[in-house]
Amino acid sequence: MKKKILIEINRNSLKLIVYKKFLPISKRFMKVAIAGSSVTKFGELWDESFYSLAEKAAKDALSASRIDPQKIDAIFVANMLSGNLLGQNHLGAQIASLLKLNCPAYTIEAACASGGLAVNLACQGIDAGTYENVLVVGAEKMTDDSTSIVTTGLMGAASQVERKAGLTFPGLYALMANAHMEKYGTTRKQLAAVAVKNHANGALNPIAQFHNKIEIEKVLKSTMVASPLTLFDCSPISDGAAAVVLSKNIKTNNVVITASQAATDQIGLSERKSITELLAAQLASQKAYKQTGLNPENIDVAEVHDCFTIAEIMAYEDLGFCKRGQGGKFIESGAPTLTGKIPVNPSGGLKACGHPVGATGIKQVIEIEEQLKGKAEKRQVKGAKIGLTHNVGGSGATAAVHILQI
Amino acid sequence: MKKKILIEINRNSLKLIVYKKFLPISKRFMKVAIAGSSVTKFGELWDESFYSLAEKAAKDALSASRIDPQKIDAIFVANMLSGNLLGQNHLGAQIASLLKLNCPAYTIEAACASGGLAVNLACQGIDAGTYENVLVVGAEKMTDDSTSIVTTGLMGAASQVERKAGLTFPGLYALMANAHMEKYGTTRKQLAAVAVKNHANGALNPIAQFHNKIEIEKVLKSTMVASPLTLFDCSPISDGAAAVVLSKNIKTNNVVITASQAATDQIGLSERKSITELLAAQLASQKAYKQTGLNPENIDVAEVHDCFTIAEIMAYEDLGFCKRGQGGKFIESGAPTLTGKIPVNPSGGLKACGHPVGATGIKQVIEIEEQLKGKAEKRQVKGAKIGLTHNVGGSGATAAVHILQI
Repeated sequence: MKKKILIEINRNSLKLIVYKKFLPISKRFMKVAIAGSSVTKFGELWDESFYSLAEKAAKDALSASRIDPQKIDAIFVANMLSGNLLGQNHLGAQIASLLKLNCPAYTIEAACASGGLAVNLACQGIDAGTYENVLVVGAEKMTDDSTSIVTTGLMGAASQVERKAGLTFPGLYALMANAHMEKYGTTRKQLAAVAVKNHANGALNPIAQFHNKIEIEKVLKSTMVASPLTLFDCSPISDGAAAVVLSKNIKTNNVVITASQAATDQIGLSERKSITELLAAQLASQKAYKQTGLNPENIDVAEVHDCFTIAEIMAYEDLGFCKRGQGGKFIESGAPTLTGKIPVNPSGGLKACGHPVGATGIKQVIEIEEQLKGKAEKRQVKGAKIGLTHNVGGSGATAAVHILQI
Repeated sequence: MKKKILIEINRNSLKLIVYKKFLPISKRFMKVAIAGSSVTKFGELWDESFYSLAEKAAKDALSASRIDPQKIDAIFVANMLSGNLLGQNHLGAQIASLLKLNCPAYTIEAACASGGLAVNLACQGIDAGTYENVLVVGAEKMTDDSTSIVTTGLMGAASQVERKAGLTFPGLYALMANAHMEKYGTTRKQLAAVAVKNHANGALNPIAQFHNKIEIEKVLKSTMVASPLTLFDCSPISDGAAAVVLSKNIKTNNVVITASQAATDQIGLSERKSITELLAAQLASQKAYKQTGLNPENIDVAEVHDCFTIAEIMAYEDLGFCKRGQGGKFIESGAPTLTGKIPVNPSGGLKACGHPVGATGIKQVIEIEEQLKGKAEKRQVKGAKIGLTHNVGGSGATAAVHILQI
């Protein structure tokens, strides 16, 4: 084993050596291969249906994996709003039918973290030996209905009390933004800088919903949604699908998921100890770091859940990329830009790449996979070997964190 | 080990000896304890909300298990229609919040098999060593909306093509009933006999929605819904919740889940090879028999998915309780009555106990648990030691089968 480590020292980066060094001494490591993956264009896809998107992503991921579809042991489908928007449930069976598969098919719903939890269950099942190969598909078709129908549907992710009291998601995150600004001195421009960075990254991503670069002034002057959040602080309503085939059989050049963790917090903001941080994200990431023996300094690149700009600032802090309360200064310093200390949301994030709810958590995993393989083209983070995804449900009641390595 | 088997030969039934004999020689056996369980009254529960039902079942099951809630490693919530009927999703986090727990919380949706698949995922996770203790909660609140809203919601379980073509669930099962009658000579009275038996059982079950016994004539003369199915061939719309705490730690007198299997078939009837049988139920039950080394003759009692009377007749055949095409004669013979060869649906089934969709698959497990513990009072199946549950999603695209033993 020692010899093997030495060979790898010569071939790979220092961070990989740390990982390999831990590998033989700890059996806590999860090792789930991403055997194949596929993500559709995100955006307002008028020519596509929910099914055409989900089927395309699933079939392309299967094809890329070169695994015989009959050897898929389970399908996990991530979706939030199909029941509300399409009058369609039972999606697991629907997608298994399209693929002509008879394996168990589970639909997982956890609001905007549906994709992350679907990947999480698949990883657990493979890691524990229940499955050899699993297909995870996430999709959402949100632009065929009026905005009021879609946003009402989305509020189903919130606490029944706060939802019925009239709060909206921009409203909930605006409460968090105001509290963060008051407690830590986070500025309006720091919030805006998150959107500016993510639009710059999205402009480099072929599948992104938005390819337009923006300036801080544009964010500040855009339509007010829920003070202090303006239109450009908010992620869009999107269509799209993403799929991964996960496998216990690790082939050369496969990116490997080495941690898969989830946690839950009080769904109502009024029930939480603090609204300037997300406890679920802290718990999930702490478990993920523990599972791998890694710490935030080891992360080369991350995809985080920037449903609103304040959410990305809290994510920096919850994931330990900077100290509590320093998220505003972290973005201001340029640390999370493509060439910064820890590039965050190279895909453009939810803000610019788009947010088809059920697909988001899976797209994050695929973006990190592409980054670690060095295939992210114009948005490539140089030399990235260890990446992290952070997927949040609703206003933070659910969080799923994955760590990926190559 | 031999000595232990001999002791058990003296203490228990022959069927248990077969199980014990297999135990040491095969590691395929699943052993997941039902540490605690609770089911609410099923019916039109005007004084209850979705949350009061789910919370009551969850807390009572936790309390019965005597497991510290902080030692619950995951929560699986089964529900189909909360998004449609209550505008509420993200139920995993909602229920974790009510219980003040921070463990991962997953919502599982597979139409009417949501409960069965939630139990299935929990069993897999415990069996594989991912979790030590898991809470599974299923609930549905269906009687607060108009029947047309509820039945439209329920059609979300069907194939998008057949749903949009105007088919209803009674219509889909009526097609199966007509085909079964034509192919095998199943009679209208044989269908009705299923409802008569299940109402007789429901009359003995305190939690059942209906306590009225009925006669064959009453079924035949009730309102036509979709020929040949009349009102009394159909399960009702119900409110209710059920919860189990599953654990890897098996205590004396715990009922143990020894098989947990699921399978999928084409969601559209028009895509299937046959509409007189449910392939998914056959595949899931064959896997469950294989997992335990048992066969249909070993089953002492079963809870099956009688959403319509024809569904129970197909279940007899799909589960191997009788030969293909003999389901009508099987009910006519009295074999599935409380004192028959294989008592089926001692709870009253979906037909008389009620069918709050997300709760159904979990209630089936609890009914079998009570039967095996000898605590089913007036509806007790004498000497039952091995039981089976059969939970079907929609018109048969999903099936989950569990085998329980004591």
